[in-house]
Amino acid sequence: MAMLELYELAGAEEDRRFSPFCWRTRLALAHKGLPVETIPWRFTEKDRIAPSGQGRVPVLVDDGRWIADSWAIAGHLEEAYPDRPSLFGDAAGRALSRFYNNWADTVLNPGLIRLTLLDIWRHVHDKDRDYFRRSREERFGQSLEAVAADREERVAAFRQSLTPLRLTLQAQPFLGGEAPLYADYIVFGGFQWVRCISDFAVLAPDDPVAAWRGRMLGLFDGLAAKAKGYSV
Amino acid sequence: MAMLELYELAGAEEDRRFSPFCWRTRLALAHKGLPVETIPWRFTEKDRIAPSGQGRVPVLVDDGRWIADSWAIAGHLEEAYPDRPSLFGDAAGRALSRFYNNWADTVLNPGLIRLTLLDIWRHVHDKDRDYFRRSREERFGQSLEAVAADREERVAAFRQSLTPLRLTLQAQPFLGGEAPLYADYIVFGGFQWVRCISDFAVLAPDDPVAAWRGRMLGLFDGLAAKAKGYSV
Repeated sequence: MAMLELYELAGAEEDRRFSPFCWRTRLALAHKGLPVETIPWRFTEKDRIAPSGQGRVPVLVDDGRWIADSWAIAGHLEEAYPDRPSLFGDAAGRALSRFYNNWADTVLNPGLIRLTLLDIWRHVHDKDRDYFRRSREERFGQSLEAVAADREERVAAFRQSLTPLRLTLQAQPFLGGEAPLYADYIVFGGFQWVRCISDFAVLAPDDPVAAWRGRMLGLFDGLAAKAKGYSV
Repeated sequence: MAMLELYELAGAEEDRRFSPFCWRTRLALAHKGLPVETIPWRFTEKDRIAPSGQGRVPVLVDDGRWIADSWAIAGHLEEAYPDRPSLFGDAAGRALSRFYNNWADTVLNPGLIRLTLLDIWRHVHDKDRDYFRRSREERFGQSLEAVAADREERVAAFRQSLTPLRLTLQAQPFLGGEAPLYADYIVFGGFQWVRCISDFAVLAPDDPVAAWRGRMLGLFDGLAAKAKGYSV
């Protein structure tokens, strides 16, 4: 088996890996039991991943083939390594996981970024700071400081938006049931992202979602728990 | 095989069946290819379903066994009729479907009811009207008329709340992939509910969610399309 390489977003410190999408892939690789060499990458290093045909991470290089986009990478891993534990259960599970991807991308992660945007900026590499501030202030139409303001009040609405997740994790230990599946990695990626760059408590300690996050942090010999970040 | 019986919420007309939860079960039974005798039931007829141990429908009676709650009924059908087409794909798919149930119960259906509550009241049986108005006005803390007010303005926010659903159905024909699964019936139940009692356009005609709704209406020889309701 050729060595797999994964380009991952890194912060000012090379070992602060804080992309929610890269965490989906890291945990998918661990689920499959595939060793990987991770390569730190910064926002402005578009040239280094040009062979992937686009400018964002994660980018996986598998035996000379460049694959971008966490969802596409998960599909590739499932097809290329069918003898390893499935990420989806079966074809139906793969289809059913797509909604989780879209829910995380359009509800969960946008909710998280509005609580932690300024913390992200503080942790990005010096050479990325101007790019990050400019692109995000353009996206949000206000300063990073304004986006982060009043987060103590706004966190209640964020937590309320997790109701479907909370009810599900009250009924079963993982989104995938008794054991985690890719749907768990999709959603957990968001929580791991903010854990890596912020000490803000996005979850109440007694939230069943926090208990699940604890289970996720412990998977694969504490892969996510050991990553550079904050204890939350 | 013993005949299955399903208690279904009915309106003033016996053939107006408008419960989102009953529709989940009706379509699950059709998916399994199981014939069923449906029994019209009204909100205030708690005594008739007392053997189920609670007071809401759907209630399925299978060979003398009374089973309440649409999620529990789906699980029962999957276990009792394993040789029929699966509702979930496999065990992982069943676990992955629970989030859909909670999303529909806490995001989709509450959004729909705030657009159509007064329409429901207009269609319930005379003997249910006082019960319905009193219980719902207590739940919402305002009159039915106040809940329904300004829906033309509020529908935009409702449609925006469907973003994860929309993106998923732009990428694949059903939530279950190439063919529908129970996750589709869970979500479709909400749209079929409002279709049965309201001519209000909860979806824009060019919405990919509306195209999926059209595919769902056509399943099982038009089971949902033929039900008494409005063309939307």
